[in-house]
Amino acid sequence: MTVAVGIIMGSKSDWPTMQHAADMLDKLGVAYEIKVVSAHRTPDLLFDYAKTAQGRGIKVIIAGAGGAAHLPGMCASQTSLPVLGVPVKSRALSGLDSLLSIVQMPGGVAVGTLAIGDAGAKNAGLLAAQILATSDNALLAKIDAFRAEQTDSVLAEPDPRTAL
Amino acid sequence: MTVAVGIIMGSKSDWPTMQHAADMLDKLGVAYEIKVVSAHRTPDLLFDYAKTAQGRGIKVIIAGAGGAAHLPGMCASQTSLPVLGVPVKSRALSGLDSLLSIVQMPGGVAVGTLAIGDAGAKNAGLLAAQILATSDNALLAKIDAFRAEQTDSVLAEPDPRTAL
Amino acid sequence: MTVAVGIIMGSKSDWPTMQHAADMLDKLGVAYEIKVVSAHRTPDLLFDYAKTAQGRGIKVIIAGAGGAAHLPGMCASQTSLPVLGVPVKSRALSGLDSLLSIVQMPGGVAVGTLAIGDAGAKNAGLLAAQILATSDNALLAKIDAFRAEQTDSVLAEPDPRTAL
Amino acid sequence: MTVAVGIIMGSKSDWPTMQHAADMLDKLGVAYEIKVVSAHRTPDLLFDYAKTAQGRGIKVIIAGAGGAAHLPGMCASQTSLPVLGVPVKSRALSGLDSLLSIVQMPGGVAVGTLAIGDAGAKNAGLLAAQILATSDNALLAKIDAFRAEQTDSVLAEPDPRTAL
Amino acid sequence: MTVAVGIIMGSKSDWPTMQHAADMLDKLGVAYEIKVVSAHRTPDLLFDYAKTAQGRGIKVIIAGAGGAAHLPGMCASQTSLPVLGVPVKSRALSGLDSLLSIVQMPGGVAVGTLAIGDAGAKNAGLLAAQILATSDNALLAKIDAFRAEQTDSVLAEPDPRTAL
Amino acid sequence: MTVAVGIIMGSKSDWPTMQHAADMLDKLGVAYEIKVVSAHRTPDLLFDYAKTAQGRGIKVIIAGAGGAAHLPGMCASQTSLPVLGVPVKSRALSGLDSLLSIVQMPGGVAVGTLAIGDAGAKNAGLLAAQILATSDNALLAKIDAFRAEQTDSVLAEPDPRTAL
Amino acid sequence: MTVAVGIIMGSKSDWPTMQHAADMLDKLGVAYEIKVVSAHRTPDLLFDYAKTAQGRGIKVIIAGAGGAAHLPGMCASQTSLPVLGVPVKSRALSGLDSLLSIVQMPGGVAVGTLAIGDAGAKNAGLLAAQILATSDNALLAKIDAFRAEQTDSVLAEPDPRTAL
Amino acid sequence: MTVAVGIIMGSKSDWPTMQHAADMLDKLGVAYEIKVVSAHRTPDLLFDYAKTAQGRGIKVIIAGAGGAAHLPGMCASQTSLPVLGVPVKSRALSGLDSLLSIVQMPGGVAVGTLAIGDAGAKNAGLLAAQILATSDNALLAKIDAFRAEQTDSVLAEPDPRTAL
Repeated sequence: MTVAVGIIMGSKSDWPTMQHAADMLDKLGVAYEIKVVSAHRTPDLLFDYAKTAQGRGIKVIIAGAGGAAHLPGMCASQTSLPVLGVPVKSRALSGLDSLLSIVQMPGGVAVGTLAIGDAGAKNAGLLAAQILATSDNALLAKIDAFRAEQTDSVLAEPDPRTAL
Repeated sequence: MTVAVGIIMGSKSDWPTMQHAADMLDKLGVAYEIKVVSAHRTPDLLFDYAKTAQGRGIKVIIAGAGGAAHLPGMCASQTSLPVLGVPVKSRALSGLDSLLSIVQMPGGVAVGTLAIGDAGAKNAGLLAAQILATSDNALLAKIDAFRAEQTDSVLAEPDPRTAL
Repeated sequence: MTVAVGIIMGSKSDWPTMQHAADMLDKLGVAYEIKVVSAHRTPDLLFDYAKTAQGRGIKVIIAGAGGAAHLPGMCASQTSLPVLGVPVKSRALSGLDSLLSIVQMPGGVAVGTLAIGDAGAKNAGLLAAQILATSDNALLAKIDAFRAEQTDSVLAEPDPRTAL
Repeated sequence: MTVAVGIIMGSKSDWPTMQHAADMLDKLGVAYEIKVVSAHRTPDLLFDYAKTAQGRGIKVIIAGAGGAAHLPGMCASQTSLPVLGVPVKSRALSGLDSLLSIVQMPGGVAVGTLAIGDAGAKNAGLLAAQILATSDNALLAKIDAFRAEQTDSVLAEPDPRTAL
Repeated sequence: MTVAVGIIMGSKSDWPTMQHAADMLDKLGVAYEIKVVSAHRTPDLLFDYAKTAQGRGIKVIIAGAGGAAHLPGMCASQTSLPVLGVPVKSRALSGLDSLLSIVQMPGGVAVGTLAIGDAGAKNAGLLAAQILATSDNALLAKIDAFRAEQTDSVLAEPDPRTAL
Repeated sequence: MTVAVGIIMGSKSDWPTMQHAADMLDKLGVAYEIKVVSAHRTPDLLFDYAKTAQGRGIKVIIAGAGGAAHLPGMCASQTSLPVLGVPVKSRALSGLDSLLSIVQMPGGVAVGTLAIGDAGAKNAGLLAAQILATSDNALLAKIDAFRAEQTDSVLAEPDPRTAL
Repeated sequence: MTVAVGIIMGSKSDWPTMQHAADMLDKLGVAYEIKVVSAHRTPDLLFDYAKTAQGRGIKVIIAGAGGAAHLPGMCASQTSLPVLGVPVKSRALSGLDSLLSIVQMPGGVAVGTLAIGDAGAKNAGLLAAQILATSDNALLAKIDAFRAEQTDSVLAEPDPRTAL
Repeated sequence: MTVAVGIIMGSKSDWPTMQHAADMLDKLGVAYEIKVVSAHRTPDLLFDYAKTAQGRGIKVIIAGAGGAAHLPGMCASQTSLPVLGVPVKSRALSGLDSLLSIVQMPGGVAVGTLAIGDAGAKNAGLLAAQILATSDNALLAKIDAFRAEQTDSVLAEPDPRTAL
């Protein structure tokens, strides 16, 4: 199975958040690679990673970072692959700084930004798969099945009082 | 040329913002359709639009809305196509409400969110093209060319004092 | 006793908040139904719920949700019944995202929004009862009695030092 | 036609906002009264207004105010009628202060809060009518008609490019 | 010793914050009275309290409240005594709502607002004493002594490493 | 007439805001002095001003500043006189920075903070007079008269539609 | 005169802000170079600029950018020279996004951040000179003179009423 | 070894944050002094400290404070030495108040501001060293070595899954 998605994050401490992206890709059967790449501490690695990703067969990059989160945007500056950004919850400002640092990109270099934290990471995995599915009907069917199962799990327990 | 991108917006008044998405797609030679679809005033139309988009050949949906901006997320709830959200600048809160209403989606239904306003709309067009280019090398080349040209235009005028 | 109020919420995890709405309705003797209805995971159920509520005798709908909280507004898009929205406290942004996603509705589709969290849920129950009481004097008397009792409980313990 | 809705506001300068509530009630054929009542400058008038409203036949009160907006909440403290609050856009903080001052009521005294500014005032008128319509089928039909007309006006102009 | 300061708060749960005001007044030898007075649950008591305070010899009122904190401003609407407001830290928004609800008063009715939480309550006690000291030299001397002692306690431990 | 109030501000550009404090004191017949004193550009003048104010007969200091507004707090650090702070509206952040820089004082040094901008300056003048009136019944009567007149002016024009 | 300061900015449109940095350096007689360097559109130029700056004799870098402002932090990732960041006021969020994107750097790579907008740019020029003056007494004397002149200009016009 | 950096903080309770500045200077072999200096409780000491720092050989001052954090700016008002400000995380507003109080300085008096909390303190130590290194090549080499080591530590553990 070809590795189609690259998951990078600014620090090892982002992994508890970013693993939700990996879990979702596992569930949908999409192969991925995972790497710590710090925009600020390993800038050359970041540029190298971004410039070579397409050549290695990567189709979508997921980048998670917190605080002054420059990883997704700087990655996007060096590749025409779609880049998805996950704002990791920060200590002082709860990820509002991460969110604004990722989403407020200037016109001409785009980052598709997801929600702060775990839900955002999970959805980054899902959206990466949806992007791949624009040319992969088998994957699309898996996503549809996941979505249907998700709907069914809500329908199956309509009363919140019995569920806790 | 097949229509591959659907651009929807919650109100006619969002067009001055959303036209930047259309302009970018024009520049990259990607065909699109444009429609006013209001989550709150035409909810049935929205569901119909989202459910039928894939069947009509749409590959990516761009949805722009302001305030309590529900259009992108509700569109995403009815399709497995990638949905990109553009927070339109709102009157009182300058689009912070639009941004949070679009980006803070729960895990399981994803919206790739761009910046507030014109830059975000432009980048929604660009990111839609990047998504299509994951399976279209000719389009990828056009995006690479656009990016190179953009870089050159900065390099050509290094002194800001002569440029105003 | 006819069921007059529908309480819906986006997820089972909203129940610890939303039960305060149910408790208030219990105290005032108003019958209600409770259901998990997710705008994003069960959009068709939501539309069905909203469209059929009036026919089933529901007079007021209380909808609670967190994050990009689309449930109250999308419910309001499909019914002319009064819809009350409760912003559930979210993990990263403490419910500010929930609040703005619910309250900042465009002109033409209204959601009466209450405070973030437990107090908001309690008040949604109270306001629903106040709405029903516009045509039910017996209920109005119960509300007046609840309010008087609430006032008396403050008056009975004027010194905060003895009360903790 | 009995006056069923009371519209109050903290200052004459709130009228350009609050007239949107009156316009909506006019459109739906609901009679109302309008008065400047300042929580801070005429507190006794406010209490008198709130205490006597029900006796005068008022069924719903709409209260608009800006800044440290105490009018809706203090009105609600003196009546069991439903009170709807409209945060008027303030000079320095664009109505965020007005919104939080109105919506963050403690449990036990409720204000149904609408959006900041004109859209919120319009929706306060609409929601007041929806509340009255819980016991008035003729009014409900008018609201349904208004909603249908609103939907049709969006459907009639699906292309935003021809509309500006 | 005449009671010169009235300390009121919206709820018993505000006492852990507001006791810092009382402690400061104790330290400076200023007599005070303490009472739970809720703007929303006991509005008539609030007006009665505010209207009669001056007649009872009160010179300054300290009012603490959280969330949509209307107590200080409504108290100020009924008396020409100086009113000091303490924003109590709220559950969801950490007291930002309390602060804006208290400080953003319209021109013509003033509340002198202190910091959110314990420090603000302590300073409300201090500022109340400073106000009384504008016509009480003995009290002024006590305040000067407290301030000098406070300065000395910092000067006495210049090295933070030995102090923890 | 003895000068009882000192009005200081960080810059000449604060005068259009701060003159509302002066106007209110004029209206109430309270004598004052006005001076530009910059915490950052004339720190020694500030300390000298604050240390000598009491000796010159000043009873209350009103300090207005914008941005990182240190003037009120640093003034309070050098005097036991009551200091009232007025957050001047700032260019980028509309005075939210000014407000937080003034109000969030640590326990032990107090600043009574008013609203952002003109209303806050007006109320600083009013509150200064209220403070002086705690030992000046003639002034108290003037304040009561101003308040009554203010109430009457609202009562005289109850209909906002005729007033614009 | 050796060029000691590099002023870079993300876009030509940042020049009206950033020229205040240049003006301050002119006033203090510090030579500088100016260049448009975009983190997102010319990332390789940015890295080249940052890596070669020290070799060219640059001692301090001033970087201004708006929105998701990555220029200062990414510049700092490639040099051990002191980097000063100026948050340029952005259209939707008034520079709050710029500020957080610049200042919230992770431990290990530092950016000394100034205020949003013109004042921040001016102070970036001043702080750059102060940094150079740690080893240049002649420059220190110029800074002291500028500061003294600034103080004198405030002292010369103590009455704001005559100055407008 | 000459003491080149002064680290001051507003309270002993700031030490757990500020020690990260000291640790970084230790790591780089830069001598420093540490002192509690409160802008509000020991203003004269602050002015004395700031005025005499240069004479004692100090080259850079690091000042940390929380809430209405006036220490860095007031220190900068009394010296031409570079002043670096560290916003300490505050209880209610998580350091947003500290950040704005430090960074939003008016033009003419500069504070180089770092991130909220521990990371900001660490970077203040680093930036102070970078400033000293503009005229100290041995120190520059140490900083380069620290930076290289930091980069290597990221490169050495590229897989976040093995690292937790």
